[in-house]
Amino acid sequence: MQSDEAYAKLAMAHAFPLGEEIKIGGQYVPVLRDGPWLYVSGQIPRVGDQVQFVGAVGSGPDAVIDLAGARRAATLSTLRALTLAKSALGSLAAIRSVPRISVFVRSTPDFTQQSEVADGASEALYAVFGPRGVHTRTSVGVLQLPKGAAVEIDFVFGVE
Amino acid sequence: MQSDEAYAKLAMAHAFPLGEEIKIGGQYVPVLRDGPWLYVSGQIPRVGDQVQFVGAVGSGPDAVIDLAGARRAATLSTLRALTLAKSALGSLAAIRSVPRISVFVRSTPDFTQQSEVADGASEALYAVFGPRGVHTRTSVGVLQLPKGAAVEIDFVFGVE
Amino acid sequence: MQSDEAYAKLAMAHAFPLGEEIKIGGQYVPVLRDGPWLYVSGQIPRVGDQVQFVGAVGSGPDAVIDLAGARRAATLSTLRALTLAKSALGSLAAIRSVPRISVFVRSTPDFTQQSEVADGASEALYAVFGPRGVHTRTSVGVLQLPKGAAVEIDFVFGVE
Repeated sequence: MQSDEAYAKLAMAHAFPLGEEIKIGGQYVPVLRDGPWLYVSGQIPRVGDQVQFVGAVGSGPDAVIDLAGARRAATLSTLRALTLAKSALGSLAAIRSVPRISVFVRSTPDFTQQSEVADGASEALYAVFGPRGVHTRTSVGVLQLPKGAAVEIDFVFGVE
Repeated sequence: MQSDEAYAKLAMAHAFPLGEEIKIGGQYVPVLRDGPWLYVSGQIPRVGDQVQFVGAVGSGPDAVIDLAGARRAATLSTLRALTLAKSALGSLAAIRSVPRISVFVRSTPDFTQQSEVADGASEALYAVFGPRGVHTRTSVGVLQLPKGAAVEIDFVFGVE
Repeated sequence: MQSDEAYAKLAMAHAFPLGEEIKIGGQYVPVLRDGPWLYVSGQIPRVGDQVQFVGAVGSGPDAVIDLAGARRAATLSTLRALTLAKSALGSLAAIRSVPRISVFVRSTPDFTQQSEVADGASEALYAVFGPRGVHTRTSVGVLQLPKGAAVEIDFVFGVE
């Protein structure tokens, strides 16, 4: 249950509501278990109904979100994924590995610190899981994201 | 065989040619089975040799494709993937799950309805597979796609 | 050991240093084995500390990298992935399949040959693995990449 406690602590530190509801039904789902894998759909930094970070990340006239904001957006996206995983599994203790995350950063044309943005997700996974939260990742800079979000991240977890 | 019939019906509704040939050989392949997983390469809305939807999705002077067109492009990309899967497996009845699809939408700078575009894929999967076609997905807006296509989607299927 | 020799030959042909060190530790890793899968984080065409191809791929005033350069960048990214896989597994002979690669090409707005860029990766995989290196792939054109790299590729390998 150590991971669940670390999750609760991280969520509180980011004013992220615990136990946010998992939307079930429809033609796609936010989280799906298939054998030893738990897939989480691309998560944006939404808290309740509000997307917290909307805009392009970078500097210059087109930029709305700076690096610090984007990292926090990556943390919130990760908190959403953890909330979904916990709802699906009962406890985050059931997660034994995090083989892959893909981090999409809505970027201004000159912004090249997508990896530094992704650190906001990597740090959150490490805070919750410790060494078993170490993962591979891919970070890219894209033109747009759903609802204009600054960051979108999808996850593959290994489960027991 | 229910899925095969639903596939045939969907293909006809979209004037999509049944039994389009699967290109084999070369250094990469459109479809590959590995253990219990069937991977499908990124599919664009090509019918025969023609890409049906070329251009950026959105509104404004740069946009060529509107939301309705983009959703139809997502459906055609999905039909291609189903055709490839059927060729590889003999029948779509062998597919037991759809853990992940990734939907890349060639977008104008202001277009943020990538999820709504992806619904064109999700609805097609549900029409063919019913509840076992429910999947996780990630939708992002990108600057360009191969051959200028409006949409590209890749798939991971679970097979028996 | 045939794959190891083919790898060494390809690396030498591209002046790629053999046995480049694998960075271990931190909150994410470049390579992670999970059951029968080996995941490799998104790789850019870095040799030592230098990213070899920085800039947008295409033609026109915004383009810095042409198709030939971008293909070579894709080959270098693949060599990095192979180096990481070899470090993790001891020998590339342990790789039995390559189910998926995702190829992100930093593109100018009008560049649509992302598939042709990806051929630089596909050819490298075939040169090293032969038929068991045949894979599925997805190629997209993105606005930016970490450190301004021209290409980023991630990999899923099947291992024995």
